[in-house]
Amino acid sequence: MTKERKINMTIEKIENNSLSPIVRDAVQKRLDMLTKPQGSLGVLEELVIRLALIQDSVTPVINKKYVFVFAADHGVAKEGVSAYPQEVTAQMVYNFLAGGAAINALSKRAGAEVVVVDAGVAHDFSGCKGLIDQKVVYGSHNMTESPAMSREEAIKCIVSGIELAEEYEKKGINLAGVGEMGIANTTAASAVTAILCKLSPTVVTGKGTGIDENRLEKKVNIVKKAIEINAPDVNDPLDVLSKVGGAEIGQIAGFLLGCAALRIPVITDGFIATSGALIAQALCPALSDFLFASHVSQEPGHIYQLKKLGLSPLFDLGLRLGEGTGTTIAMQLMDSALEAYYNMASFQQAGVSEKEE
Amino acid sequence: MTKERKINMTIEKIENNSLSPIVRDAVQKRLDMLTKPQGSLGVLEELVIRLALIQDSVTPVINKKYVFVFAADHGVAKEGVSAYPQEVTAQMVYNFLAGGAAINALSKRAGAEVVVVDAGVAHDFSGCKGLIDQKVVYGSHNMTESPAMSREEAIKCIVSGIELAEEYEKKGINLAGVGEMGIANTTAASAVTAILCKLSPTVVTGKGTGIDENRLEKKVNIVKKAIEINAPDVNDPLDVLSKVGGAEIGQIAGFLLGCAALRIPVITDGFIATSGALIAQALCPALSDFLFASHVSQEPGHIYQLKKLGLSPLFDLGLRLGEGTGTTIAMQLMDSALEAYYNMASFQQAGVSEKEE
Repeated sequence: MTKERKINMTIEKIENNSLSPIVRDAVQKRLDMLTKPQGSLGVLEELVIRLALIQDSVTPVINKKYVFVFAADHGVAKEGVSAYPQEVTAQMVYNFLAGGAAINALSKRAGAEVVVVDAGVAHDFSGCKGLIDQKVVYGSHNMTESPAMSREEAIKCIVSGIELAEEYEKKGINLAGVGEMGIANTTAASAVTAILCKLSPTVVTGKGTGIDENRLEKKVNIVKKAIEINAPDVNDPLDVLSKVGGAEIGQIAGFLLGCAALRIPVITDGFIATSGALIAQALCPALSDFLFASHVSQEPGHIYQLKKLGLSPLFDLGLRLGEGTGTTIAMQLMDSALEAYYNMASFQQAGVSEKEE
Repeated sequence: MTKERKINMTIEKIENNSLSPIVRDAVQKRLDMLTKPQGSLGVLEELVIRLALIQDSVTPVINKKYVFVFAADHGVAKEGVSAYPQEVTAQMVYNFLAGGAAINALSKRAGAEVVVVDAGVAHDFSGCKGLIDQKVVYGSHNMTESPAMSREEAIKCIVSGIELAEEYEKKGINLAGVGEMGIANTTAASAVTAILCKLSPTVVTGKGTGIDENRLEKKVNIVKKAIEINAPDVNDPLDVLSKVGGAEIGQIAGFLLGCAALRIPVITDGFIATSGALIAQALCPALSDFLFASHVSQEPGHIYQLKKLGLSPLFDLGLRLGEGTGTTIAMQLMDSALEAYYNMASFQQAGVSEKEE
């Protein structure tokens, strides 16, 4: 099967994944029998319904959770757009594998396993244990000079992401979170977002890991230049991904498509992970039905991405770390929602009088 | 010791509980050494700092969590202000004790134990196991006809709440959540809020467990009538509590004061629990330093209460259930925050390069 065929088949599968009104009604009925005013658990009730619809089951299960951290480098880092040197990407990959990063601590609380994916880090990890090797590039090209990746590399990213979802489906995954690591990747994400949301780079570009106003101005101009030089075609998501995206953004896009096709509920994190979701949605508009937005990040472009995806973030905790950190909080909300759904007594069971009206 | 003396001593203790700048600086320093951009964990970092300040320790601990559900009945229920009959208060108390309510399921996820307190339910629970008996009234009086409670009863509520905190301090509690159950108690909470926030009952009164527009109009008028008839003194929180409050609201107020005095971080839930916080703050403005607001509820008066308390809610999940449900989500956020604080590697430990600027 060619790589293009693989992508198209995955998209078709998503489009054929119906969301059953029978499941929706049955879950709603069960929720309304529980000893609480109807709808009073708010978003927690919506989470139960969405999980049930995605898993196509009135008894959704999320006991096998993984957070996938996709790492890659970006040639545009040479332009001085980040507060940290490029070597930090590889250093943080080692930190993830050693269990010392925020995503390790937070995933532990959420009962999720961390999976670290080398999508395109500019470092040789040969012989490194525990790392998933899906390296498509040794860092992308500097997008102010040429396309970040070739079209073939972009396609390879999408397919690698899809195949990763398929591999973990075999392991029994029933809830996924996606995050990323990559110095300068807010710059690539800003370019992707500006194009796909049809907004000015000035509006969607932010301070990333924490640059000052001067560097932010420079960063905005770099995003503008990258778009100008490469002229990505807004109607061709693979063109956008290859020209101004990055390997982790592409693999996240593919992974989200793979999860949606397999009815694995999947949660996005911040600005970069969500730019992967934008690419995936552009390839397959039905994607959003299978996707959850955990939080709204401090990056100014994130709210526009979420609007474009038609997703409401679950919370706003001022997070701007990436790695998938927001998804671990969302997982805990889902666990709470299902705990209530499964373990609350009904009005009848508890002998509690119902509403009078 | 007289009951008034007990209250005054507790208030004095809170006022003397300093928040140490040395602790703050040490915690901030540790947070900034961890492998993440400074401040990038947003509110989670603020939670660590506040927990440390309240516990007066650079190593805050929250391994012994309880959610206290204070239950009481309200004479004003006779006016038809609720969607549920009054008997539901006692029925739900039995449901809490049997483990079938939302708060039981959600507390389990948060690793917290549920403590059910009879503050003033109009039901005889004699011989009922597991219930904390702090009954001050068999339901309050109908506040549209007379004060809801006597001043002595209001004082008894506050002291009972303080003593409950003292009792659980001996059990090693290091994080508390407060919630409530009481048919018609949003009506009492609306009156308390209108007075202490100096707002019209029209602005702060909402639909509670889910009444329609007609009944909402009636409810607003009942709140107005209760205030008119009783003319509570805005400068005397005990007068407000006795005239238009309720037993659970009073015991929550006392419990919050007791926790603050003992440096036990305590989390409020929705509109009714927070009206207890308003009474407590009116008695002791320093209270807010020891208090966390979990969420902003669907009741329209809640945001005004939080503003008055100077607290930012951690999330908005459209909850309108009470019982302390919101506090269980907040507890999980705090657990996540501390997990990161204690288990992340520092830049030095992980060999990660620091910010360049």
